[in-house]
Amino acid sequence: MAIEAVVFDAYGTLFDVQSVATLTEEAFPGQGGLITQIWRMKQLEYSWLRSMMGEYEDFWSVTRAALGYTLGALGLAADAVLLERIAHSYNTLSPYPDAGACLAALGGRRAAILSNGSPAMLAALVAHAGFADLIPEVLSIDAARAYKPDPRAYALVEARLGVPPARVLFVTSNGFDVAGAKRFGFTVARIERQAPAALAAELAAGPVGPATMYRALRTRVEAIGAPPDFTIAALAELPSLLSGREWA
Amino acid sequence: MAIEAVVFDAYGTLFDVQSVATLTEEAFPGQGGLITQIWRMKQLEYSWLRSMMGEYEDFWSVTRAALGYTLGALGLAADAVLLERIAHSYNTLSPYPDAGACLAALGGRRAAILSNGSPAMLAALVAHAGFADLIPEVLSIDAARAYKPDPRAYALVEARLGVPPARVLFVTSNGFDVAGAKRFGFTVARIERQAPAALAAELAAGPVGPATMYRALRTRVEAIGAPPDFTIAALAELPSLLSGREWA
Repeated sequence: MAIEAVVFDAYGTLFDVQSVATLTEEAFPGQGGLITQIWRMKQLEYSWLRSMMGEYEDFWSVTRAALGYTLGALGLAADAVLLERIAHSYNTLSPYPDAGACLAALGGRRAAILSNGSPAMLAALVAHAGFADLIPEVLSIDAARAYKPDPRAYALVEARLGVPPARVLFVTSNGFDVAGAKRFGFTVARIERQAPAALAAELAAGPVGPATMYRALRTRVEAIGAPPDFTIAALAELPSLLSGREWA
Repeated sequence: MAIEAVVFDAYGTLFDVQSVATLTEEAFPGQGGLITQIWRMKQLEYSWLRSMMGEYEDFWSVTRAALGYTLGALGLAADAVLLERIAHSYNTLSPYPDAGACLAALGGRRAAILSNGSPAMLAALVAHAGFADLIPEVLSIDAARAYKPDPRAYALVEARLGVPPARVLFVTSNGFDVAGAKRFGFTVARIERQAPAALAAELAAGPVGPATMYRALRTRVEAIGAPPDFTIAALAELPSLLSGREWA
Protein backbone atom coordinates (compact mmCIF):
# COMPACT_ATOMS: atom_id res chain seq x y z
CA MET A 1 0.00 0.00 0.00
CA ALA A 2 1.46 3.31 -1.04
CA ILE A 3 1.86 5.97 1.60
CA GLU A 4 0.58 9.24 0.18
CA ALA A 5 0.67 11.44 3.24
CA VAL A 6 2.84 11.65 6.33
CA VAL A 7 0.90 13.16 9.22
CA PHE A 8 2.72 14.34 12.30
CA ASP A 9 1.60 14.89 15.82
CA ALA A 10 2.94 18.25 17.06
CA TYR A 11 3.42 18.39 20.86
CA GLY A 12 6.12 15.95 21.88
CA THR A 13 6.71 14.74 18.33
CA LEU A 14 7.88 17.67 16.20
CA PHE A 15 8.06 20.11 19.11
CA ASP A 16 9.64 19.57 22.50
CA VAL A 17 7.11 20.25 25.27
CA GLN A 18 9.97 20.17 27.74
CA SER A 19 11.23 23.42 26.26
CA VAL A 20 8.66 25.37 28.30
CA ALA A 21 10.95 24.71 31.28
CA THR A 22 13.10 27.72 30.39
CA LEU A 23 10.23 30.09 31.03
CA THR A 24 8.67 28.20 33.96
CA GLU A 25 12.05 28.16 35.67
CA GLU A 26 12.59 31.84 34.98
CA ALA A 27 9.18 32.68 36.43
CA PHE A 28 9.54 30.36 39.44
CA PRO A 29 13.19 29.58 40.11
CA GLY A 30 13.79 26.07 41.38
CA GLN A 31 10.28 24.92 40.41
CA GLY A 32 10.45 25.06 36.62
CA GLY A 33 10.96 21.36 36.09
CA LEU A 34 8.16 20.31 38.39
CA ILE A 35 5.77 22.87 36.86
CA THR A 36 6.63 21.66 33.37
CA GLN A 37 5.76 18.04 34.16
CA ILE A 38 2.56 18.62 36.13
CA TRP A 39 1.38 21.14 33.55
CA ARG A 40 1.85 18.74 30.64
CA MET A 41 0.25 15.86 32.56
CA LYS A 42 -2.81 17.93 33.38
CA GLN A 43 -3.04 19.50 29.93
CA LEU A 44 -3.63 16.07 28.36
CA GLU A 45 -5.80 14.84 31.23
CA TYR A 46 -8.04 17.85 30.78
CA SER A 47 -8.37 17.20 27.06
CA TRP A 48 -9.47 13.64 27.88
CA LEU A 49 -11.77 14.51 30.75
CA ARG A 50 -13.47 17.33 28.86
CA SER A 51 -14.03 14.95 25.97
CA MET A 52 -15.64 12.39 28.28
CA MET A 53 -17.86 15.01 29.88
CA GLY A 54 -18.93 16.36 26.50
CA GLU A 55 -17.55 19.77 27.46
CA TYR A 56 -15.16 20.69 24.71
CA GLU A 57 -13.00 23.76 25.13
CA ASP A 58 -10.10 24.48 22.84
CA PHE A 59 -6.51 23.58 23.70
CA TRP A 60 -5.54 27.11 24.57
CA SER A 61 -8.21 27.14 27.25
CA VAL A 62 -7.17 23.67 28.42
CA THR A 63 -3.49 24.66 28.45
CA ARG A 64 -4.16 27.71 30.59
CA ALA A 65 -6.44 25.79 32.95
CA ALA A 66 -3.78 23.09 33.38
CA LEU A 67 -1.18 25.75 34.14
CA GLY A 68 -3.51 27.38 36.65
CA TYR A 69 -4.05 24.03 38.33
CA THR A 70 -0.29 23.44 38.46
CA LEU A 71 0.58 26.79 40.01
CA GLY A 72 -2.29 26.34 42.46
CA ALA A 73 -1.03 22.92 43.54
CA LEU A 74 2.37 24.40 44.23
CA GLY A 75 0.86 27.31 46.10
CA LEU A 76 2.34 29.79 43.62
CA ALA A 77 0.64 33.05 42.82
CA ALA A 78 0.48 34.29 39.25
CA ASP A 79 -1.64 37.13 37.97
CA ALA A 80 -3.46 36.82 34.66
CA VAL A 81 -0.63 38.52 32.76
CA LEU A 82 2.06 36.18 34.05
CA LEU A 83 -0.13 33.12 33.55
CA GLU A 84 -0.80 34.16 29.97
CA ARG A 85 2.87 34.80 29.34
CA ILE A 86 3.89 31.38 30.67
CA ALA A 87 1.08 29.65 28.76
CA HIS A 88 2.29 31.36 25.61
CA SER A 89 5.49 29.29 25.86
CA TYR A 90 3.45 26.47 24.29
CA ASN A 91 3.30 28.64 21.16
CA THR A 92 7.06 29.00 20.95
CA LEU A 93 8.17 25.45 21.73
CA SER A 94 11.50 24.43 20.29
CA PRO A 95 11.26 21.96 17.44
CA TYR A 96 13.36 18.86 17.96
CA PRO A 97 16.78 19.42 16.34
CA ASP A 98 16.07 16.89 13.58
CA ALA A 99 12.50 18.01 12.84
CA GLY A 100 13.24 20.47 10.03
CA ALA A 101 15.56 18.13 8.15
CA CYS A 102 13.06 15.31 8.52
CA LEU A 103 10.25 17.39 7.06
CA ALA A 104 12.48 18.40 4.16
CA ALA A 105 13.25 14.78 3.28
CA LEU A 106 9.87 13.15 2.89
CA GLY A 107 10.36 12.38 -0.79
CA GLY A 108 7.64 14.63 -2.11
CA ARG A 109 4.85 13.06 -0.07
CA ARG A 110 2.23 15.34 1.39
CA ALA A 111 3.12 16.36 4.90
CA ALA A 112 0.64 17.53 7.50
CA ILE A 113 0.24 18.13 11.21
CA LEU A 114 -2.76 16.75 13.09
CA SER A 115 -2.68 18.19 16.57
CA ASN A 116 -4.76 18.90 19.65
CA GLY A 117 -3.53 22.48 19.46
CA SER A 118 -5.97 25.22 18.57
CA PRO A 119 -5.58 26.75 15.10
CA ALA A 120 -3.97 29.86 16.59
CA MET A 121 -1.54 27.84 18.73
CA LEU A 122 -0.48 25.71 15.77
CA ALA A 123 -0.08 28.69 13.47
CA ALA A 124 2.16 30.36 16.04
CA LEU A 125 4.14 27.17 16.63
CA VAL A 126 4.81 26.48 12.95
CA ALA A 127 5.67 30.10 12.22
CA HIS A 128 8.02 30.32 15.20
CA ALA A 129 9.92 27.26 13.99
CA GLY A 130 10.01 28.49 10.40
CA PHE A 131 8.24 25.35 9.20
CA ALA A 132 5.45 26.97 7.18
CA ASP A 133 6.90 25.94 3.82
CA LEU A 134 7.92 22.49 5.02
CA ILE A 135 4.52 21.48 6.35
CA PRO A 136 1.83 23.54 4.68
CA GLU A 137 -1.18 21.57 5.93
CA VAL A 138 -1.86 22.04 9.60
CA LEU A 139 -5.00 20.38 10.94
CA SER A 140 -6.35 21.21 14.37
CA ILE A 141 -8.74 18.81 16.07
CA ASP A 142 -10.67 21.96 16.93
CA ALA A 143 -12.58 21.48 13.66
CA ALA A 144 -13.97 18.23 15.09
CA ARG A 145 -14.26 19.54 18.66
CA ALA A 146 -12.88 16.17 19.76
CA TYR A 147 -9.41 15.53 21.13
CA LYS A 148 -7.16 12.65 20.24
CA PRO A 149 -7.59 9.67 20.66
CA ASP A 150 -11.26 10.25 19.75
CA PRO A 151 -11.66 8.82 16.23
CA ARG A 152 -13.43 12.01 15.12
CA ALA A 153 -10.10 13.80 15.51
CA TYR A 154 -8.27 11.38 13.20
CA ALA A 155 -11.10 11.49 10.67
CA LEU A 156 -10.07 15.07 9.86
CA VAL A 157 -7.12 13.74 7.87
CA GLU A 158 -9.25 12.12 5.18
CA ALA A 159 -11.81 14.92 5.32
CA ARG A 160 -9.20 17.60 4.74
CA LEU A 161 -6.48 15.88 2.73
CA GLY A 162 -8.61 13.40 0.84
CA VAL A 163 -6.20 10.60 1.75
CA PRO A 164 -7.77 7.43 3.19
CA PRO A 165 -6.35 6.08 6.48
CA ALA A 166 -4.64 3.14 4.81
CA ARG A 167 -2.46 5.56 2.83
CA VAL A 168 -1.42 7.65 5.82
CA LEU A 169 1.74 7.21 7.84
CA PHE A 170 1.05 8.79 11.21
CA VAL A 171 4.07 9.83 13.27
CA THR A 172 3.86 10.39 17.00
CA SER A 173 5.80 9.98 20.23
CA ASN A 174 2.70 9.95 22.42
CA GLY A 175 1.45 6.57 23.57
CA PHE A 176 -2.22 7.53 23.61
CA ASP A 177 -1.82 8.87 20.09
CA VAL A 178 -0.18 5.66 18.88
CA ALA A 179 -3.15 3.71 20.25
CA GLY A 180 -5.74 6.05 18.79
CA ALA A 181 -4.10 6.32 15.38
CA LYS A 182 -3.62 2.55 15.06
CA ARG A 183 -7.17 1.86 16.06
CA PHE A 184 -8.34 4.40 13.51
CA GLY A 185 -6.52 2.59 10.73
CA PHE A 186 -3.38 4.60 10.09
CA THR A 187 0.01 3.01 9.66
CA VAL A 188 1.88 4.31 12.70
CA ALA A 189 5.53 5.18 13.23
CA ARG A 190 6.34 5.79 16.86
CA ILE A 191 9.21 8.00 17.95
CA GLU A 192 10.89 6.41 20.95
CA ARG A 193 13.47 8.89 22.16
CA GLN A 194 14.45 6.88 25.22
CA ALA A 195 15.06 3.16 24.91
CA PRO A 196 12.90 1.06 27.25
CA ALA A 197 15.99 -0.39 28.95
CA ALA A 198 17.34 3.09 29.63
CA LEU A 199 14.05 4.18 31.19
CA ALA A 200 13.87 1.01 33.28
CA ALA A 201 17.44 1.57 34.49
CA GLU A 202 16.63 5.18 35.36
CA LEU A 203 13.55 4.07 37.32
CA ALA A 204 15.51 1.35 39.12
CA ALA A 205 18.39 3.64 40.01
CA GLY A 206 16.14 6.29 41.52
CA PRO A 207 15.33 8.66 43.02
CA VAL A 208 12.41 9.04 40.64
CA GLY A 209 11.80 12.74 40.14
CA PRO A 210 9.05 14.46 38.16
CA ALA A 211 10.77 14.28 34.76
CA THR A 212 11.44 10.56 35.08
CA MET A 213 7.89 10.04 36.29
CA TYR A 214 6.60 11.91 33.27
CA ARG A 215 8.58 9.74 30.89
CA ALA A 216 7.46 6.58 32.71
CA LEU A 217 3.84 7.67 32.38
CA ARG A 218 3.70 9.19 28.94
CA THR A 219 6.40 8.06 26.55
CA ARG A 220 5.85 4.31 26.31
CA VAL A 221 3.52 2.21 24.19
CA GLU A 222 0.21 2.01 26.03
CA ALA A 223 -1.38 -1.32 26.98
CA ILE A 224 -4.70 -0.39 25.39
CA GLY A 225 -4.41 -1.48 21.80
CA ALA A 226 -2.28 -2.61 18.93
CA PRO A 227 1.41 -1.69 18.95
CA PRO A 228 2.80 0.74 16.38
CA ASP A 229 3.88 -0.58 12.99
CA PHE A 230 7.32 0.95 13.30
CA THR A 231 9.40 2.31 16.13
CA ILE A 232 12.28 4.65 15.45
CA ALA A 233 14.50 6.49 17.89
CA ALA A 234 14.32 9.89 16.24
CA LEU A 235 12.67 11.90 13.48
CA ALA A 236 16.01 11.70 11.66
CA GLU A 237 15.29 8.03 10.96
CA LEU A 238 11.97 8.69 9.25
CA PRO A 239 13.24 9.48 5.73
CA SER A 240 15.11 6.17 5.50
CA LEU A 241 12.11 4.31 6.91
CA LEU A 242 10.02 5.84 4.13
CA SER A 243 12.49 5.21 1.33
CA GLY A 244 13.53 1.78 2.48
CA ARG A 245 10.09 0.15 2.34
CA GLU A 246 8.22 -1.44 -0.52
CA TRP A 247 5.54 1.20 -0.16
CA ALA A 248 8.04 3.89 -1.11
CA MET B 1 -33.78 20.18 48.79
CA ALA B 2 -33.82 16.96 50.75
CA ILE B 3 -30.96 14.55 50.24
CA GLU B 4 -32.42 11.08 49.84
CA ALA B 5 -29.36 9.12 48.86
CA VAL B 6 -25.68 9.35 49.66
CA VAL B 7 -23.64 7.86 46.85
CA PHE B 8 -19.97 7.09 47.39
CA ASP B 9 -17.11 6.66 45.00
CA ALA B 10 -15.11 3.56 45.96
CA TYR B 11 -11.44 3.72 44.93
CA GLY B 12 -9.69 6.46 46.85
CA THR B 13 -12.85 7.51 48.70
CA LEU B 14 -14.06 4.57 50.81
CA PHE B 15 -11.06 2.37 49.99
CA ASP B 16 -7.41 3.30 50.06
CA VAL B 17 -5.78 2.55 46.71
CA GLN B 18 -2.41 3.10 48.36
CA SER B 19 -2.95 -0.12 50.30
CA VAL B 20 -1.86 -2.18 47.28
CA ALA B 21 1.68 -1.09 48.17
CA THR B 22 2.00 -3.92 50.68
CA LEU B 23 1.73 -6.53 47.95
CA THR B 24 3.61 -4.62 45.26
CA GLU B 25 6.49 -4.11 47.69
CA GLU B 26 6.45 -7.77 48.69
CA ALA B 27 6.55 -8.83 45.04
CA PHE B 28 9.20 -6.29 44.03
CA PRO B 29 11.16 -5.10 47.07
CA GLY B 30 12.18 -1.48 46.88
CA GLN B 31 9.84 -0.75 43.98
CA GLY B 32 6.44 -1.12 45.62
CA GLY B 33 5.76 2.57 46.07
CA LEU B 34 6.68 3.47 42.52
CA ILE B 35 4.62 0.59 41.10
CA THR B 36 1.63 1.64 43.18
CA GLN B 37 1.65 5.21 41.83
CA ILE B 38 2.27 4.43 38.15
CA TRP B 39 -0.29 1.64 38.26
CA ARG B 40 -3.02 3.88 39.67
CA MET B 41 -2.18 6.69 37.27
CA LYS B 42 -2.40 4.38 34.27
CA GLN B 43 -5.51 2.58 35.51
CA LEU B 44 -7.50 5.79 35.37
CA GLU B 45 -5.83 7.00 32.17
CA TYR B 46 -6.82 3.76 30.49
CA SER B 47 -10.41 4.11 31.61
CA TRP B 48 -10.45 7.59 30.05
CA LEU B 49 -8.62 6.69 26.85
CA ARG B 50 -10.71 3.59 26.22
CA SER B 51 -13.82 5.70 26.69
CA MET B 52 -12.59 8.22 24.14
CA MET B 53 -11.71 5.50 21.64
CA GLY B 54 -15.09 3.83 22.08
CA GLU B 55 -13.32 0.65 23.19
CA TYR B 56 -14.83 -0.21 26.53
CA GLU B 57 -13.29 -3.00 28.56
CA ASP B 58 -14.19 -3.57 32.17
CA PHE B 59 -12.12 -2.25 35.06
CA TRP B 60 -10.59 -5.61 35.84
CA SER B 61 -9.16 -5.73 32.35
CA VAL B 62 -8.04 -2.10 32.61
CA THR B 63 -6.49 -2.70 36.03
CA ARG B 64 -4.47 -5.65 34.79
CA ALA B 65 -3.39 -3.81 31.64
CA ALA B 66 -2.25 -0.84 33.73
CA LEU B 67 -0.26 -3.16 35.99
CA GLY B 68 1.30 -4.86 32.97
CA TYR B 69 2.28 -1.47 31.59
CA THR B 70 3.80 -0.48 34.95
CA LEU B 71 5.90 -3.59 35.37
CA GLY B 72 6.99 -3.30 31.73
CA ALA B 73 8.10 0.29 32.22
CA LEU B 74 10.21 -0.77 35.19
CA GLY B 75 11.66 -3.69 33.25
CA LEU B 76 10.20 -6.16 35.75
CA ALA B 77 9.13 -9.62 34.72
CA ALA B 78 5.91 -11.10 36.07
CA ASP B 79 4.24 -14.24 34.82
CA ALA B 80 0.47 -14.34 34.43
CA VAL B 81 0.00 -15.87 37.88
CA LEU B 82 1.98 -13.19 39.68
CA LEU B 83 0.36 -10.41 37.68
CA GLU B 84 -3.09 -11.75 38.53
CA ARG B 85 -2.16 -12.06 42.19
CA ILE B 86 -0.92 -8.47 42.37
CA ALA B 87 -3.93 -7.17 40.44
CA HIS B 88 -6.18 -8.97 42.90
CA SER B 89 -4.94 -6.57 45.58
CA TYR B 90 -7.45 -4.09 44.16
CA ASN B 91 -10.14 -6.46 45.39
CA THR B 92 -8.84 -6.43 48.94
CA LEU B 93 -8.08 -2.74 49.42
CA SER B 94 -8.20 -1.49 52.97
CA PRO B 95 -11.15 0.74 53.71
CA TYR B 96 -10.20 4.07 55.21
CA PRO B 97 -10.31 3.75 59.02
CA ASP B 98 -13.37 5.99 59.29
CA ALA B 99 -15.32 4.46 56.38
CA GLY B 100 -17.36 1.91 58.33
CA ALA B 101 -18.42 4.34 61.05
CA CYS B 102 -19.34 6.91 58.41
CA LEU B 103 -21.56 4.45 56.54
CA ALA B 104 -23.23 3.48 59.80
CA ALA B 105 -24.13 7.09 60.62
CA LEU B 106 -25.98 8.34 57.55
CA GLY B 107 -29.23 8.88 59.39
CA GLY B 108 -31.25 6.30 57.57
CA ARG B 109 -30.63 7.71 54.10
CA ARG B 110 -30.07 5.29 51.28
CA ALA B 111 -26.39 4.61 50.78
CA ALA B 112 -24.85 3.37 47.57
CA ILE B 113 -21.56 3.00 45.79
CA LEU B 114 -21.11 4.18 42.21
CA SER B 115 -17.74 3.00 41.02
CA ASN B 116 -15.65 2.30 37.94
CA GLY B 117 -14.98 -1.16 39.38
CA SER B 118 -16.46 -4.19 37.68
CA PRO B 119 -19.33 -5.89 39.51
CA ALA B 120 -17.03 -8.72 40.61
CA MET B 121 -14.34 -6.31 41.85
CA LEU B 122 -16.85 -4.30 43.84
CA ALA B 123 -18.50 -7.37 45.31
CA ALA B 124 -15.11 -8.62 46.47
CA LEU B 125 -14.14 -5.22 47.84
CA VAL B 126 -17.32 -4.72 49.85
CA ALA B 127 -17.29 -8.27 51.18
CA HIS B 128 -13.63 -8.03 52.17
CA ALA B 129 -14.31 -4.90 54.18
CA GLY B 130 -17.44 -6.36 55.77
CA PHE B 131 -19.54 -3.49 54.38
CA ALA B 132 -22.30 -5.54 52.74
CA ASP B 133 -24.93 -4.60 55.31
CA LEU B 134 -23.80 -0.98 55.56
CA ILE B 135 -24.00 -0.24 51.85
CA PRO B 136 -26.37 -2.67 50.18
CA GLU B 137 -26.58 -0.93 46.79
CA VAL B 138 -23.43 -1.21 44.76
CA LEU B 139 -23.57 0.21 41.24
CA SER B 140 -20.87 -0.52 38.71
CA ILE B 141 -20.47 1.73 35.68
CA ASP B 142 -20.10 -1.54 33.78
CA ALA B 143 -23.87 -1.47 33.31
CA ALA B 144 -23.45 1.71 31.24
CA ARG B 145 -20.15 0.63 29.65
CA ALA B 146 -18.95 4.18 30.28
CA TYR B 147 -16.42 5.26 32.88
CA LYS B 148 -16.69 8.28 35.09
CA PRO B 149 -16.75 11.23 34.33
CA ASP B 150 -18.94 10.22 31.36
CA PRO B 151 -22.47 11.36 32.28
CA ARG B 152 -23.84 7.94 31.31
CA ALA B 153 -22.02 6.54 34.33
CA TYR B 154 -23.68 8.96 36.75
CA ALA B 155 -27.08 8.38 35.15
CA LEU B 156 -27.05 4.89 36.67
CA VAL B 157 -27.90 6.37 40.06
CA GLU B 158 -31.34 7.57 39.06
CA ALA B 159 -31.90 4.53 36.83
CA ARG B 160 -31.17 2.12 39.64
CA LEU B 161 -32.13 3.96 42.80
CA GLY B 162 -34.95 6.07 41.42
CA VAL B 163 -33.48 9.15 43.09
CA PRO B 164 -33.09 12.24 40.88
CA PRO B 165 -29.66 13.95 40.79
CA ALA B 166 -30.84 16.94 42.83
CA ARG B 167 -31.56 14.61 45.77
CA VAL B 168 -28.20 12.86 45.69
CA LEU B 169 -25.18 13.76 47.75
CA PHE B 170 -22.19 12.35 45.90
CA VAL B 171 -19.03 11.77 47.94
CA THR B 172 -15.62 11.45 46.31
CA SER B 173 -11.97 12.26 46.79
CA ASN B 174 -11.14 12.12 43.09
CA GLY B 175 -10.91 15.43 41.26
CA PHE B 176 -12.19 14.10 37.94
CA ASP B 177 -15.14 12.58 39.79
CA VAL B 178 -15.94 15.86 41.55
CA ALA B 179 -16.02 17.58 38.16
CA GLY B 180 -18.13 14.89 36.51
CA ALA B 181 -20.59 14.55 39.38
CA LYS B 182 -21.08 18.32 39.70
CA ARG B 183 -21.62 18.72 35.99
CA PHE B 184 -24.15 15.90 36.10
CA GLY B 185 -26.17 17.70 38.73
CA PHE B 186 -25.35 15.99 42.01
CA THR B 187 -24.59 17.86 45.18
CA VAL B 188 -20.95 16.97 45.79
CA ALA B 189 -18.97 16.52 48.98
CA ARG B 190 -15.26 16.25 48.34
CA ILE B 191 -12.93 14.43 50.69
CA GLU B 192 -9.68 16.38 50.95
CA ARG B 193 -7.31 14.27 53.00
CA GLN B 194 -4.35 16.56 52.55
CA ALA B 195 -4.77 20.30 52.99
CA PRO B 196 -3.68 22.34 49.95
CA ALA B 197 -1.09 24.20 52.01
CA ALA B 198 0.42 20.91 53.21
CA LEU B 199 0.70 19.61 49.66
CA ALA B 200 2.21 22.88 48.46
CA ALA B 201 4.75 22.77 51.28
CA GLU B 202 5.62 19.17 50.44
CA LEU B 203 6.11 20.09 46.78
CA ALA B 204 8.23 23.12 47.68
CA ALA B 205 10.39 21.19 50.12
CA GLY B 206 11.19 18.43 47.64
CA PRO B 207 12.51 16.10 46.46
CA VAL B 208 9.22 15.26 44.77
CA GLY B 209 8.92 11.49 44.65
CA PRO B 210 6.22 9.37 43.02
CA ALA B 211 3.74 9.48 45.94
CA THR B 212 3.92 13.26 46.17
CA MET B 213 3.61 13.50 42.40
CA TYR B 214 0.53 11.31 42.53
CA ARG B 215 -1.12 13.51 45.12
CA ALA B 216 -0.20 16.65 43.18
CA LEU B 217 -1.79 15.18 40.06
CA ARG B 218 -4.85 13.44 41.38
CA THR B 219 -6.11 14.67 44.72
CA ARG B 220 -6.93 18.30 44.06
CA VAL B 221 -9.97 20.01 42.61
CA GLU B 222 -9.60 20.00 38.84
CA ALA B 223 -9.68 23.20 36.80
CA ILE B 224 -12.33 21.84 34.45
CA GLY B 225 -15.62 22.71 36.04
CA ALA B 226 -17.53 23.85 39.05
CA PRO B 227 -16.01 23.32 42.50
CA PRO B 228 -17.59 20.87 44.94
CA ASP B 229 -20.41 22.06 47.17
CA PHE B 230 -18.63 20.91 50.32
CA THR B 231 -15.09 19.97 51.20
CA ILE B 232 -14.37 17.89 54.27
CA ALA B 233 -11.09 16.46 55.48
CA ALA B 234 -12.32 12.93 56.16
CA LEU B 235 -15.29 10.60 55.88
CA ALA B 236 -15.69 11.00 59.63
CA GLU B 237 -16.98 14.54 59.01
CA LEU B 238 -19.76 13.42 56.69
CA PRO B 239 -22.42 12.53 59.29
CA SER B 240 -22.27 15.98 60.89
CA LEU B 241 -22.31 17.61 57.45
CA LEU B 242 -25.52 15.70 56.74
CA SER B 243 -27.19 16.36 60.05
CA GLY B 244 -26.08 19.96 60.31
CA ARG B 245 -27.72 21.21 57.13
CA GLU B 246 -31.23 22.41 56.43
CA TRP B 247 -31.64 19.52 54.03
CA ALA B 248 -31.28 17.03 56.86
